[in-house]
Amino acid sequence: MKNVISIGIRNPINRLDFVYMQREIISIANSIVEEAVVGLLCTNFPESLGVADLGCSSGPNTFIISSEIIDIVHATSCRLGHPVPELRVSLNDLPGNDFNCIFKALPEFYKKLKEEGGGFDQCFVSGVAGSFYGRLFPSKSLHFVHSSSSLHWLSQVPPGLDSKEGIPLNKGKLYLSETSPVRVVKAYLSQFHKDFSLFLKSRAKEMVPGGRMVLSFMGRRDIHPTTQQSCFQWELLALALMSLASEGLVEEEKIDSFNAPYYAPCPEEVKFVVQTDGSFLIDRLETFEFYWDDQMRTEFEELSSGQRVAKTVRAVVESMLECHFEREILDVLFRRYGEIVDDHLSRNRAMYVDLVVSLIRIG
Amino acid sequence: MKNVISIGIRNPINRLDFVYMQREIISIANSIVEEAVVGLLCTNFPESLGVADLGCSSGPNTFIISSEIIDIVHATSCRLGHPVPELRVSLNDLPGNDFNCIFKALPEFYKKLKEEGGGFDQCFVSGVAGSFYGRLFPSKSLHFVHSSSSLHWLSQVPPGLDSKEGIPLNKGKLYLSETSPVRVVKAYLSQFHKDFSLFLKSRAKEMVPGGRMVLSFMGRRDIHPTTQQSCFQWELLALALMSLASEGLVEEEKIDSFNAPYYAPCPEEVKFVVQTDGSFLIDRLETFEFYWDDQMRTEFEELSSGQRVAKTVRAVVESMLECHFEREILDVLFRRYGEIVDDHLSRNRAMYVDLVVSLIRIG
Repeated sequence: MKNVISIGIRNPINRLDFVYMQREIISIANSIVEEAVVGLLCTNFPESLGVADLGCSSGPNTFIISSEIIDIVHATSCRLGHPVPELRVSLNDLPGNDFNCIFKALPEFYKKLKEEGGGFDQCFVSGVAGSFYGRLFPSKSLHFVHSSSSLHWLSQVPPGLDSKEGIPLNKGKLYLSETSPVRVVKAYLSQFHKDFSLFLKSRAKEMVPGGRMVLSFMGRRDIHPTTQQSCFQWELLALALMSLASEGLVEEEKIDSFNAPYYAPCPEEVKFVVQTDGSFLIDRLETFEFYWDDQMRTEFEELSSGQRVAKTVRAVVESMLECHFEREILDVLFRRYGEIVDDHLSRNRAMYVDLVVSLIRIG
Repeated sequence: MKNVISIGIRNPINRLDFVYMQREIISIANSIVEEAVVGLLCTNFPESLGVADLGCSSGPNTFIISSEIIDIVHATSCRLGHPVPELRVSLNDLPGNDFNCIFKALPEFYKKLKEEGGGFDQCFVSGVAGSFYGRLFPSKSLHFVHSSSSLHWLSQVPPGLDSKEGIPLNKGKLYLSETSPVRVVKAYLSQFHKDFSLFLKSRAKEMVPGGRMVLSFMGRRDIHPTTQQSCFQWELLALALMSLASEGLVEEEKIDSFNAPYYAPCPEEVKFVVQTDGSFLIDRLETFEFYWDDQMRTEFEELSSGQRVAKTVRAVVESMLECHFEREILDVLFRRYGEIVDDHLSRNRAMYVDLVVSLIRIG
């Protein structure tokens, strides 16, 4: 289950569907990124600035955040009367990510930099493959760390989702649900706690004192982990699968034994892990809401809302499902899912919640 | 012509043929690499050691040199009673190189490191895509630079190989030859001088004072650039092409207008560029000779010497030829080439010359 994210977006046909959603999230976090980078440069202006984008993926969005950071650094340097620092940009994703695609786009990226920004011939991009739930970079080498739409993916499916006898506890569901037993809820929270702690510990070693980090990921406002905001896209996908099971197209046991390596935390849970770790100070912690079907409204006008949502969700989760279910059912599944989402949206305006947290390395 | 090297070895079928030759070259340079790394650590032991492998390619050899450097650093640290430094390993090749293949092998590489070497959990590998004839790395970030079998490739086919009227001067040849006009010889030398200067200038900025660099590449002993040692594999390949032309399979004009972006310098030429640049001191400069057909003798016993040479040369130059000639002629061409090489080797024992130069960053 470890390669889920990068396998998901490796499929070039689906990648674009995911792009719109991811871009909306990047733009939400943009002003917070700007504030953090400006704050960093005002308190401690380095000669050589280390920046990392964790879970950078590969595709049209890969260089968006780097370009924005470069623009902010350039503008701030000019305002402060400092020469533009040397920039070391590390792009990270899992080893299964398509780094070849990133590197092929690199000459064009460098060319644009030279044409647009005076003084920016000193930008060095490198690719770093590995899980951010562990060390990735040399000690104290980073000043600014960014991650968008990645940290809601756990390092693994939480252990402990079966009974002692090996019977799946989270029957008929893919993620947390109102019907999920407490043990399942606890297992998910515990895995999030473990993963996010390890993430912070690793970054704490890699960042300089005063370094800044802006993370955005799917979350929830509500304290209760089975609230609709955090679970309902999975709930409806489970419904679609169960309806296929009722027609004999999928074995129900297969659905019972599948659980997504995903967790949408609430602000309090994030705060708790950061405070327990103790290496970072929370500068800002914001929640944003956006409608399920908003991000592709203009690009896919001919599709119903439900079909648009189905396209986006398919782009992200297809590879995971493929490993567990038969590849052949996917078209039917996502058509059915689109119908169920349409029905749901005819009665509700469903929202995703995105958490953005801005952190300062203490020390 | 810029992507020749990495395109050449991207073909997985051919890659293995090249591997044997490259491995022989790596093993020749090995004791010089060891001497340089030990020398580096004895004079200036850093907490964090930056290592770059330029033109790392992708395949079974990619991690050989990194593994050897790690072993040397580990052994030397223990001998000197120092804790093992943090290691930053940058693997560089052109943007067309298969970095995905490298990154997929990375988890296994890290696993082996942890199992074998105590204390080596602090190794951080990154991929850097770009031409080494220009800046690749941040200022003063590298302690040891290595490059094997790459620097004989020029950044481009030298300009000035046509007459004022646009008529090719190097008729019937692919590289320097006894029949090449003086202007062609000068154009090649001038391109080598320009490229190698730019290489040294770029590395000088990236390396710390006292940093070491070991480069090995194809060269010649003889002062004359058209000596058989440096040219004859190209001379015979041109012969094979011309014999296809005589049968109407290739247009002679196509052969006239093709020139390899390659240069095999002599030690004096290397020395001259290093001394003119002035940033590096030559610690050692050695030439090694090895037989054309030695490297794959045990692996491909069933093949004639000529066919073995043809396999190796094909692996390296196929992609270049493909861009210029018809893809369809390649099988015939390399069969013919093998026969010509066999004939040549029945009367001569042809040698390649490999130059290894060990440099110290002054300052």
